[in-house]
Amino acid sequence: MQPDLFEADLRQITLTDPFLGEYQRLIRDVVIPYQWQALNDSIPEAEPSHALANYRIAAGLEKGEFYGMVFQDSDITKWLEAVAWSLSQKPDASLEQTADEVIELLAQAQCDDGYLNTWFTVKEPGLRWTNVAECHELYCAGHLFEAAVAFYRATGKRRLLAIACRFADHIDTVFGPGEGQLRGYPGHPEIELALLRLYEVTRESRYQTLARFFLEERGASPHYYDIEFEKRGGTWHWDNAGEAWMVKDKTYTHAHKPLAEQDRAVGHAVRSVYLLTGLAHLARLTQSEEKRQTCLRIWNNMVQQRMYITGGIGSQANGEAFTSDYDLPNDTAYSESCASIGLMMFARRMLEMEDDAHYADVMERAFYNTVLGGMALDGQHFFYVNLLETYPKSIPHNHIYDHVKPIRQRWFGCACCPPNIARTLVAIGHYLFMPRPDALFINFYAGSEAQFQVDGKPLSLKIDGNYPWSEKVTLSIIHPDPITHTLALRLPEWCENPRVLVNGEAASGEQIKGYLHICRSWQQGDTVTLHLPMTIRRVYANPRVRHTAGKVAIQRGPLVYCLEEADNGAELHNLSLPRDSEFREVAGAGVLAGKVLLEASGLRVPIPEGDRPLYSTEPSKTKAVRQTLTFIPWFSWANRGEGEMRIWLDEA
Amino acid sequence: MQPDLFEADLRQITLTDPFLGEYQRLIRDVVIPYQWQALNDSIPEAEPSHALANYRIAAGLEKGEFYGMVFQDSDITKWLEAVAWSLSQKPDASLEQTADEVIELLAQAQCDDGYLNTWFTVKEPGLRWTNVAECHELYCAGHLFEAAVAFYRATGKRRLLAIACRFADHIDTVFGPGEGQLRGYPGHPEIELALLRLYEVTRESRYQTLARFFLEERGASPHYYDIEFEKRGGTWHWDNAGEAWMVKDKTYTHAHKPLAEQDRAVGHAVRSVYLLTGLAHLARLTQSEEKRQTCLRIWNNMVQQRMYITGGIGSQANGEAFTSDYDLPNDTAYSESCASIGLMMFARRMLEMEDDAHYADVMERAFYNTVLGGMALDGQHFFYVNLLETYPKSIPHNHIYDHVKPIRQRWFGCACCPPNIARTLVAIGHYLFMPRPDALFINFYAGSEAQFQVDGKPLSLKIDGNYPWSEKVTLSIIHPDPITHTLALRLPEWCENPRVLVNGEAASGEQIKGYLHICRSWQQGDTVTLHLPMTIRRVYANPRVRHTAGKVAIQRGPLVYCLEEADNGAELHNLSLPRDSEFREVAGAGVLAGKVLLEASGLRVPIPEGDRPLYSTEPSKTKAVRQTLTFIPWFSWANRGEGEMRIWLDEA
Repeated sequence: MQPDLFEADLRQITLTDPFLGEYQRLIRDVVIPYQWQALNDSIPEAEPSHALANYRIAAGLEKGEFYGMVFQDSDITKWLEAVAWSLSQKPDASLEQTADEVIELLAQAQCDDGYLNTWFTVKEPGLRWTNVAECHELYCAGHLFEAAVAFYRATGKRRLLAIACRFADHIDTVFGPGEGQLRGYPGHPEIELALLRLYEVTRESRYQTLARFFLEERGASPHYYDIEFEKRGGTWHWDNAGEAWMVKDKTYTHAHKPLAEQDRAVGHAVRSVYLLTGLAHLARLTQSEEKRQTCLRIWNNMVQQRMYITGGIGSQANGEAFTSDYDLPNDTAYSESCASIGLMMFARRMLEMEDDAHYADVMERAFYNTVLGGMALDGQHFFYVNLLETYPKSIPHNHIYDHVKPIRQRWFGCACCPPNIARTLVAIGHYLFMPRPDALFINFYAGSEAQFQVDGKPLSLKIDGNYPWSEKVTLSIIHPDPITHTLALRLPEWCENPRVLVNGEAASGEQIKGYLHICRSWQQGDTVTLHLPMTIRRVYANPRVRHTAGKVAIQRGPLVYCLEEADNGAELHNLSLPRDSEFREVAGAGVLAGKVLLEASGLRVPIPEGDRPLYSTEPSKTKAVRQTLTFIPWFSWANRGEGEMRIWLDEA
Repeated sequence: MQPDLFEADLRQITLTDPFLGEYQRLIRDVVIPYQWQALNDSIPEAEPSHALANYRIAAGLEKGEFYGMVFQDSDITKWLEAVAWSLSQKPDASLEQTADEVIELLAQAQCDDGYLNTWFTVKEPGLRWTNVAECHELYCAGHLFEAAVAFYRATGKRRLLAIACRFADHIDTVFGPGEGQLRGYPGHPEIELALLRLYEVTRESRYQTLARFFLEERGASPHYYDIEFEKRGGTWHWDNAGEAWMVKDKTYTHAHKPLAEQDRAVGHAVRSVYLLTGLAHLARLTQSEEKRQTCLRIWNNMVQQRMYITGGIGSQANGEAFTSDYDLPNDTAYSESCASIGLMMFARRMLEMEDDAHYADVMERAFYNTVLGGMALDGQHFFYVNLLETYPKSIPHNHIYDHVKPIRQRWFGCACCPPNIARTLVAIGHYLFMPRPDALFINFYAGSEAQFQVDGKPLSLKIDGNYPWSEKVTLSIIHPDPITHTLALRLPEWCENPRVLVNGEAASGEQIKGYLHICRSWQQGDTVTLHLPMTIRRVYANPRVRHTAGKVAIQRGPLVYCLEEADNGAELHNLSLPRDSEFREVAGAGVLAGKVLLEASGLRVPIPEGDRPLYSTEPSKTKAVRQTLTFIPWFSWANRGEGEMRIWLDEA
């Protein structure tokens, strides 16, 4: 184990969890094959992708023109990354061969100097690196690097890694503080975090240095985006929000000032968390207190003032961006799936630096709610935007909902979320475990068998239970030889009275920053039992959040619950939950089979019959009638057709 | 009196009301002079208007280019209309002379064939009538007609009326069902209602016929907007929402189908009510049951499903438009001032047709809340958009608030609302009284002296009181000779137990559709006393309105009240009003002097000290503390600097 690579080897983890296992199966059996068809333009009803064709044209294998977005290449590399992690979970020779062929195609498309980007090779030759603010060139490179690292770590094959390194080496000659080099950095961060991953597997310090350059140069004066804008004659790529808006609006790209001076979660949410993932990683690798403090400042603002209860971030569609403190509207939320994936990534890097379970709490909140919620239970439909409340009747009519789809969609023109969910789900082991030299941190308790190396010896364990539905988790040691090591077990913030037993007796260990550290000689047959009472919790938002004033949300374990029209009828805003109502757990059925639903006695203000005037002195509340409220886990909403949904409801 | 002109002669009405009188004074002393300066481009900080210069250029009096919007001319004619009605209230020789000079300028700018529009004379000669869908040519004509009618009725002078008639005669040759005529109609309605006013003063039946043509042709197939679009080679004027959007989106202009087939309040709100004002007027003049039914259908949808408690209409900024039934968001409302003025106009025409006080109720609601609220108490600042709730801290950051100004603005680039408010306020007598041959309807009780003609004899009366603050209104007969006639006194819907005395004794009269009809021989010295108890009312919205679920609004008389940060501190969403709290009336002070404020004991959920997490299981409500809530009349909000405001608050 490399001493600073706190990353589980996914080949050594077998997910046995029925819940997440099913998601991984969907990724393997549905999402990856479907996406492959999409990339090959063989889905009649989907927008053409042309992404593979672009590479073939760049490789000189066929004639034609580039088609697609300036970041079209990344659809291929994100697919490759998902394939790689999936292969590490479940080998598939045919899939691996397909991937190998794609990798060969990439090799053929790569220029002699290592450059690899089909937009600029096919469509705009000669314009390389003239618009890093807008044109995703470095972003696409980053996704290539991530795919390369994944493929290497999943299969041991170096072919894609070599392509990535050649490209990284090329970029390293182009960008930097040296004479004749460009002092630029990407408008869409990604390459920073990817270079650090590339560094981790190659140990090539230049990659770390280059990442550091990008991060430290960002926002410097005179501003690079203005310099390159002038240099290329004042042209711009994106004009959907005014002339050269992306060049001008430097907050959108988090380049409005140097990172060391930033302290708020602003701008495009996905870019923000991608950037900070790289910064936190670098802060740890270089032990930079200044960078750590920058991460902390922005993290705190993000999760203490600007995060939805679902772990969603980005309150507005315009700019897919953060807004202001405590501005968390439910029905016009943006809360992009990718932003919550990025939040998991950021949280993971913070956790690696700080070993504080608080980060895992946020990671789990984002994962079990928004990230899972981004994909339908059939694996075939996706949300890009994740609302906390919706009233479909108004969506087609009120343009504040223009970004809203009341049901998950088959695919998107800008297909970023589905492959992002895919690669996250098949690599979930990276989030479950954090193997450090001093301790094995276990973050959440999805059923799995996993092996780690401690001083060259195998530490193997098995996690059983039915997380996050059941309260009891059993952790069994299955390696043959005793090993003395620390297991650091996260005690989730949502659990008030966790009990941990080792071989049936109360565990003796030290609770440090939300983890119970148990150090002992772990022997085959040892069991650790966690009782994590999943009390059904009424959750309230900070009174500064005006959208939730007087309202309550329901959580059980890490899951946020919601009301859906399918169970509760329409006009959900007329439902309220009395302060003293008790909850009952109910087994979900049909598409919700296997899920724990909740019921409670609630109140409904009835719709008056006939033509009641719009305004009257007749109070409606006093006419409220009893109704059983059925709450379902929010991630599983919108699997039963179009209908109203809401998380926050009035507490009567 | 013309038998079908149910319009008071403003020269015979003197407003003595301290409340509305002050508004009229502001219009005379502040708004009209300021606007005159603006039209002359002599206000350094305001955007140039150039509207007078456009006319001078068109008249050949000076060289230069057209500047401004395609409807820039209407800024002049709306000013002229306000001046006219103001002169009828208070003569002003100097102002009248200025207006006469402007009218001469218009005469000089008028083409030989009667055409008068500076955009098409100066900027786009040869393109007359090629784009009536988008280019406001007929709209501007309408405002000219309205100004002409006003000037004639206010001063008896026919100069502007002659200009208007020449132009109307010209339009009548261009548009119509005859061979070689255009079968077009305006994208922005206005000419319909204006032609009918022109008809009323000239008795020229062609004007009524032309209005009818425009109204009946609207939405016919094949669609005229498409025909002219093709004829002019597929060009378009407005591209702020996509190519030729205004041509394509026929719902926006209420031309998506014939009016006879329409049944919902849709599209651009101002255009909707302007159009319907014309339609209702024509329905009455022609006794058309079909047109009456169309008006009724759309009216009912508008006020029963799509109107704010403030009489505001148009729930969204996009398209300044209606949305869907019961979709009445408070903080993203549009509720344009002009739309509520148009709603008053529509209500007035419906009232003339139906003599049902319900229409006056809506008229009064719109007037005393949104229309008055559109202008600051200093007469110098205006709202275009009228929110029911605002949280200024989020406005600059969340783009769903892009249309929102938290404080009234000095003027607007598109200066439609201020002159519209001006002309409405100086002509308020048209709304107070509806003189019909069979009865004099009195709609609301602003202090005034007014004289009407009944069978050629004067019926004069005086209204005293301090409406809408005081509950008692005294109506004194002051004409010398007895007259037998019916006074129809509106019993406002907001008043549960009105009492009406004639000479101190309970009035005997018939209550018909919300009016108390008292027929007797009215003698000098007769007094009618109305006691209109202004009980402070808790008002609730129909439970279908999700934005007000569990919430209450406060009304006293016709006035809707609100909470402002200036009185109640910030974070208004944390305030609630217990069901049993009693109200106290309090005299306003400072800028609110003369206004009745309300106080009640309320509850405030305090903001916790220190860093409370964004989400916790600690209920906030249980920590609520008592706080006196101060409610101010909503129309008077935003006169004390920037701050939060809300009408609807939780009822505890």
